[in-house]
Amino acid sequence: MSATVLYMSMSLDGFIAGPNGGPDNGLGDGGLRLHQWLMTGGDLDLEAIRRSDSVNGEIVDEFMATGATVAGRGTFEPAGGWGGDHHDGVPIFILSRHEPAAEFAQMPLVTYVNDVTTAMRRAKEAAGDKDVLVHGAGTARLALAAGVLDELELHVIPVLFGQGRRLFEGLAREQIELQRTRILEGEGGVTHMHYRVQR
Amino acid sequence: MSATVLYMSMSLDGFIAGPNGGPDNGLGDGGLRLHQWLMTGGDLDLEAIRRSDSVNGEIVDEFMATGATVAGRGTFEPAGGWGGDHHDGVPIFILSRHEPAAEFAQMPLVTYVNDVTTAMRRAKEAAGDKDVLVHGAGTARLALAAGVLDELELHVIPVLFGQGRRLFEGLAREQIELQRTRILEGEGGVTHMHYRVQR
Repeated sequence: MSATVLYMSMSLDGFIAGPNGGPDNGLGDGGLRLHQWLMTGGDLDLEAIRRSDSVNGEIVDEFMATGATVAGRGTFEPAGGWGGDHHDGVPIFILSRHEPAAEFAQMPLVTYVNDVTTAMRRAKEAAGDKDVLVHGAGTARLALAAGVLDELELHVIPVLFGQGRRLFEGLAREQIELQRTRILEGEGGVTHMHYRVQR
Repeated sequence: MSATVLYMSMSLDGFIAGPNGGPDNGLGDGGLRLHQWLMTGGDLDLEAIRRSDSVNGEIVDEFMATGATVAGRGTFEPAGGWGGDHHDGVPIFILSRHEPAAEFAQMPLVTYVNDVTTAMRRAKEAAGDKDVLVHGAGTARLALAAGVLDELELHVIPVLFGQGRRLFEGLAREQIELQRTRILEGEGGVTHMHYRVQR
């Protein structure tokens, strides 16, 4: 069955961005360190990783095979809306309390949705048999609270950040049990940890 | 060479204790969940795990083979000073800015030390060829800042806590690179992640 899966790169101490993050500094100071495993010569280069017959490539293949994307406005807009296509022309649902600016409203694959349950339901419908790629800390928090996040895939980077923006911040005081479903030791010390949320 | 190794059980979202922790509630509300992998029938039972020929038993064997213990007063005193013996009669160094209460001062294996560098140096001397078991978030933070923590072994528990006391809190804004040295998939969904601090 199709699942909504959060894919996030995180430092061992739980940060997904460095300090001083903002609209013009989405990854925060030094935050690029968390995405080095996806880069070649300073640029994001997913195709090179996919060709490399590596564990990291297997993970990239997996998230590039998803059938829809859900992300928050704060992830999507600073990234320029991924040029209107995250991968392979799959539908993109953006969680936002606001109407999109014109630049994003005209993107044919993109739909703005104002609640997380609707976003996840529509993304699953659009994805069919495929999984849904979920991105962003705020979206993860809302989806966990609403019980509509099925799985987590954390790419744990071998670094401590000390300061920055945390993935898990502001969750309710509630223990959510997880089932560990896969641990993969990727190249460059990146450990891919996959869990299913127990409900 | 002998290493100082932080051993801590942590939820996937980074908590080492539940909310409302305090001197009479050292693990916080629900914090026992993080230590279930060390328990039998509701009681801490390290010997049963060691006899069980399991991955978790291997980890227990490892930390019970250390030659000295370093912990903070906030870990040590609420635990009744471990009855004066953490394991096998190895020396115990307690990091504290205060003099010990009489009950702890009279324990022959226990030495109170007021700075982390001295605590680690003396523990390594006492441990000889063996590693040093380090416990406690405050001690970890001070040791990382002072550059005297050599390794981390995190037992990552398949649960989200949402709220509570974090392991990594209040560290300086500084990226500390780690070398992943071992990942073990323990029983009960516990993942043992071992890293060496790069300096």
